[in-house]
Amino acid sequence: MDFTELLEKRRAVRDFEDRTVPLEVIKAIIADSIKAPNASNRQPWKFIVVNNKAMLKRISDASKKVIIAGIEKDPNSPMKGYLDTLKKEDFNVFYNASCAVIIVAPLKGATIAQDCGLLAAYFMLSAASRGLGTCWIAQGAEARDPELLAELGLPEGYRMWAPLILGYPKAIPPMPDRKEPDILKIIT
Amino acid sequence: MDFTELLEKRRAVRDFEDRTVPLEVIKAIIADSIKAPNASNRQPWKFIVVNNKAMLKRISDASKKVIIAGIEKDPNSPMKGYLDTLKKEDFNVFYNASCAVIIVAPLKGATIAQDCGLLAAYFMLSAASRGLGTCWIAQGAEARDPELLAELGLPEGYRMWAPLILGYPKAIPPMPDRKEPDILKIIT
Repeated sequence: MDFTELLEKRRAVRDFEDRTVPLEVIKAIIADSIKAPNASNRQPWKFIVVNNKAMLKRISDASKKVIIAGIEKDPNSPMKGYLDTLKKEDFNVFYNASCAVIIVAPLKGATIAQDCGLLAAYFMLSAASRGLGTCWIAQGAEARDPELLAELGLPEGYRMWAPLILGYPKAIPPMPDRKEPDILKIIT
Repeated sequence: MDFTELLEKRRAVRDFEDRTVPLEVIKAIIADSIKAPNASNRQPWKFIVVNNKAMLKRISDASKKVIIAGIEKDPNSPMKGYLDTLKKEDFNVFYNASCAVIIVAPLKGATIAQDCGLLAAYFMLSAASRGLGTCWIAQGAEARDPELLAELGLPEGYRMWAPLILGYPKAIPPMPDRKEPDILKIIT
């Protein structure tokens, strides 16, 4: 599969077959992902592998609690319309995924967010090249329950940056529309 | 070229052949890059194409001025050892590149930095798949001279996030060492 095909194949997937992702496959994708460019080759990232639906449900519940509290505190929250969905007991921010790899990195640092973006892109493309689907679930990173975070092995001073769900897609959804690239200026 | 080969081929390149990158090639790489996943498909990015060595030198000089002032103001700056290099008139943060694509995006926004990281990864891989080399030159984004930024077409409320130099590599450097992936926990 060449890169152009891979770009078409890498779609946000939220609906997976009921099939476990083998740990060797997860490790191979992680090994690809760390080849991502990053600021001064500091490689600030660490990984938590959650190949367990019940644990993902717990992370989802803890994250929803934080998000709901945030919306309820802010009468102008742009996420207000989303509150009813979030409050549904059976709404899981990770959808029906049974596997997620959580990219964690230091809480602070001028280039951490960009580095995590670079790594996540590599991760998602590597997964797609192996026939797996992914989706970055930013909402799943909101959990702040100290006991849960300790159970996940999150080190002091670190946060979850990118929970990436992973699995065998039931279908590859079409690409959502993209705007024409906005090239502000061409200086030759 | 499959994805594994592409990962080996995508290296930080700072030394380019003296050959102009055709605008169609630059546009094709940009068109690939915007297929990157991004928060809520908001696609916050815009592009400035600088295919002109003299303009890159001006951006480099304006950026160096800001970086040098920052180091001189902070006696504990971690970049202190870099001051002599920066002060050399002929040191250009873009090296000998004659082309850069500058990814610009809003100054503020919780997911902007990650989105730019995702886009930049796509851009660099697309360039590598076409035989071109790239390097993210964070230092080139420091220019704050209002006249220069206006000349570049930078909109109000936006900043340069990722200046990516682009060209035909003189050589593909070897991959710098990577740490073994630090998997903190595997929950099955």
